[in-house]
Amino acid sequence: MSDTVFFLPKGPFYLEKLISNSKKNIEGSGDLKKIKIFDVKTLEKATSKDLSFFNSVQYRPFASHTKASACITTDSLKDYLPKNCLKIIVQNVLFTTAQISKKFYPEADLDYPDQSIREVKKISSKYPSVTFGKNIFIGKKVKIGSKSIIGSNTVIEHDVQIGKNCLIGSNVTIKNTIIGNNVVIQDGCKIGVKGFGFIPIKDNNFRFPHIGRVILKDNVELGANCTIDRGSIGDTAIGENTFLDNQVHMAHNVKIGKNCMIAGQVGFAGSSTIGNNVSIGGQAGVSGHLKIGNNVKIGGGSGVVKNIPDNTTVMGYPAVPLKKFLKKNKNNE
Amino acid sequence: MSDTVFFLPKGPFYLEKLISNSKKNIEGSGDLKKIKIFDVKTLEKATSKDLSFFNSVQYRPFASHTKASACITTDSLKDYLPKNCLKIIVQNVLFTTAQISKKFYPEADLDYPDQSIREVKKISSKYPSVTFGKNIFIGKKVKIGSKSIIGSNTVIEHDVQIGKNCLIGSNVTIKNTIIGNNVVIQDGCKIGVKGFGFIPIKDNNFRFPHIGRVILKDNVELGANCTIDRGSIGDTAIGENTFLDNQVHMAHNVKIGKNCMIAGQVGFAGSSTIGNNVSIGGQAGVSGHLKIGNNVKIGGGSGVVKNIPDNTTVMGYPAVPLKKFLKKNKNNE
Amino acid sequence: MSDTVFFLPKGPFYLEKLISNSKKNIEGSGDLKKIKIFDVKTLEKATSKDLSFFNSVQYRPFASHTKASACITTDSLKDYLPKNCLKIIVQNVLFTTAQISKKFYPEADLDYPDQSIREVKKISSKYPSVTFGKNIFIGKKVKIGSKSIIGSNTVIEHDVQIGKNCLIGSNVTIKNTIIGNNVVIQDGCKIGVKGFGFIPIKDNNFRFPHIGRVILKDNVELGANCTIDRGSIGDTAIGENTFLDNQVHMAHNVKIGKNCMIAGQVGFAGSSTIGNNVSIGGQAGVSGHLKIGNNVKIGGGSGVVKNIPDNTTVMGYPAVPLKKFLKKNKNNE
Repeated sequence: MSDTVFFLPKGPFYLEKLISNSKKNIEGSGDLKKIKIFDVKTLEKATSKDLSFFNSVQYRPFASHTKASACITTDSLKDYLPKNCLKIIVQNVLFTTAQISKKFYPEADLDYPDQSIREVKKISSKYPSVTFGKNIFIGKKVKIGSKSIIGSNTVIEHDVQIGKNCLIGSNVTIKNTIIGNNVVIQDGCKIGVKGFGFIPIKDNNFRFPHIGRVILKDNVELGANCTIDRGSIGDTAIGENTFLDNQVHMAHNVKIGKNCMIAGQVGFAGSSTIGNNVSIGGQAGVSGHLKIGNNVKIGGGSGVVKNIPDNTTVMGYPAVPLKKFLKKNKNNE
Repeated sequence: MSDTVFFLPKGPFYLEKLISNSKKNIEGSGDLKKIKIFDVKTLEKATSKDLSFFNSVQYRPFASHTKASACITTDSLKDYLPKNCLKIIVQNVLFTTAQISKKFYPEADLDYPDQSIREVKKISSKYPSVTFGKNIFIGKKVKIGSKSIIGSNTVIEHDVQIGKNCLIGSNVTIKNTIIGNNVVIQDGCKIGVKGFGFIPIKDNNFRFPHIGRVILKDNVELGANCTIDRGSIGDTAIGENTFLDNQVHMAHNVKIGKNCMIAGQVGFAGSSTIGNNVSIGGQAGVSGHLKIGNNVKIGGGSGVVKNIPDNTTVMGYPAVPLKKFLKKNKNNE
Repeated sequence: MSDTVFFLPKGPFYLEKLISNSKKNIEGSGDLKKIKIFDVKTLEKATSKDLSFFNSVQYRPFASHTKASACITTDSLKDYLPKNCLKIIVQNVLFTTAQISKKFYPEADLDYPDQSIREVKKISSKYPSVTFGKNIFIGKKVKIGSKSIIGSNTVIEHDVQIGKNCLIGSNVTIKNTIIGNNVVIQDGCKIGVKGFGFIPIKDNNFRFPHIGRVILKDNVELGANCTIDRGSIGDTAIGENTFLDNQVHMAHNVKIGKNCMIAGQVGFAGSSTIGNNVSIGGQAGVSGHLKIGNNVKIGGGSGVVKNIPDNTTVMGYPAVPLKKFLKKNKNNE
């Protein structure tokens, strides 16, 4: 299941062809005309057939162990990469990565509605143990486990997998998503939509291709009208037994751990990682590219702009440890 | 109308059977094997046939007058209850209540899409004075008053009542809800969904059964994409002539009074009570279990974490009286 | 295209009849019984056939150049208007304007779902170069440009115009809206709904008629579950190449310039103007009737309550220039 992909990459392409239009320096040995690249992947997931990218020091632990045969990076970061990884040094790592990714996935910069969907009443014999409402549309190769229930006016696009005993509400759209067992998705959720990723180039936004997925593990619950973006190159994910309230927004690549409680209208900017047993109060916001530890509590309305270590309670805007927040407020009285 | 229920309780059950699995102390007289319990209700609504629960000192006024024959509570609260009310003293009032409530309402911990709905064009003769858009699905025993207009792709589940001259938009879902006259619900609202209520027990979330309703009184208006949760045991309610802007989130059991103005993206955590003539600016948040008085003004973006007396203007995070907020900001310059 | 209207005004009416029920003073010459009024328009757009209204000093630049033959205003503002403009001086400019506007547009105070819509599979021959999903409903006179793609369960109401190469998601509703080329609207957006405009009069909300539109210029992108209100008398508008993330809320009459980046869950209260090249972080809020300059950066979670000049970076609640915010936070440590 964890290997399901929603788009197959074009290619393979020779590395030289992929980067022919980019201004770059190359460090490392190897004939660019002979290195075949099969896909663009994160540092963590890349194999020796893949190209990766490395644009922030926070990914250093993954960089030093990556198996990618080549990596787009900057001059200041290149030395964290393994010796046998070919370094392609550019000015704007994300822009170059987006350009190359677009060659593998020419349509993945936009979120095209799936045209393969069919009304479920014509194909419901394929899902004998599933209970369907009315006017449900399902794409090709969708899997739905036994005893799951799907509400009305819901669209489930191609290749989505839904486990057993799931409860999907009405007016929901799901795409690019792998869902475990006993998952609840309430009315109006939009799951697996393209994330907010683009690179502004001279009065024009170059869209970052989104080829990642959404992974919802067993026993996850999502409240009404939540929006969860698919990953850009990696995945967006929620761990077992984590519950989200209504109108929560999760941007691309955010990973939330197990047993978390996320209250209404919380927002997560892209690529942050949230630990296990984390509780977040209503309307709090978590900035992008942060690491929130295990057993963290974030007060309602807080704005988190820094990493938070394990077992910490924070509050405020910007969020600080609770004691500090209380003291600050007292001083201000 | 106010007696409409969306699920009938199982039972009755003998009290002893209901609490046989809970660690508890009993105070008061009566034979647990002979006391029949017909339902679980709030302190305020319980009759002598019902069991109630009392877990916070803020409900003291209701506790001292409850007619419940028995009440789940804690050692520190029990003495507020009437003498003739049997006290069932436990560690975790909400967990015990949830367990018992689940016996009466075995399916109410999840929000199952109503499978009784039918496309309205097949049953529109039942609603001769209502104007319908396309692809509308309506459940059993739904009532809709004359001259109401319903938009397209909308789902109205069983037993919902809608008054006269109402305007319901498109892509709306409504369940477990009683709606007065002249009510406007704009596109994309999700009304009556299960609230965010569960008790974390050892890496598992025990869902609190939701059997309450949403009550929208005459002349209420809801903006687009609002989410309003049904009550857990009591109701979620909005008074006459109160208007909500787009993307407002109301959690379970919140009660808003008359003539209020709630701007866009405001969020209410569970069980708070808002008075009459209250205005709340955009993106403000109100924590759970609070009491906001009449004629209160809450500035946009504020985070309210304390009760607010009548006729007060507050602002800030956490919200303080306006003068204090302005002084605080001046001092900080 | 920019002249498309979604409702034609009733009338014309003689000015005397329009204001016969209002307490007012008149300044200027002209026979009220002979002045014919064809429409109510903003100061900027009014012609000599129209009535306008002027209720805030911020609109002074438009007031002094208005071509309106008459204008509803207050005693303190009247002298900014041109000499040949008849001044109708009242206590509550918006209430009088709303009452008069309602005579021209008797149904525009409510957002009636369009009953002219038909399922697109019956009329898709009218759109030979458009790709449609399933269960799409389209109103009269809707135009959709070539190569556009429309998702499922989407409703597009009468007179909406959509350009070429647009991508509209599923479960979307669009009304009162003019859309350029290459525009992306993701799943669940509600575009062109009536705004949150009413005047509370003695326990009753007098709704302000909404007759404006939403204008989305070329290359705009909207994330999932955004809500964009139509203008009240003017328009709500987004300039070329501006991208909005998920769950953004734009109230009536807000105007956003070109090349802006608006992150998730940002909210705009009514009638503010945002310049070009503005970036706004997640969950920030912009109060009503403000002017945000060009090249402004607003930090995530900020609450903007004042005008912001060009080229300024602000953060905080209330938002202040970044340096000040950082200093303030340091002092508080």
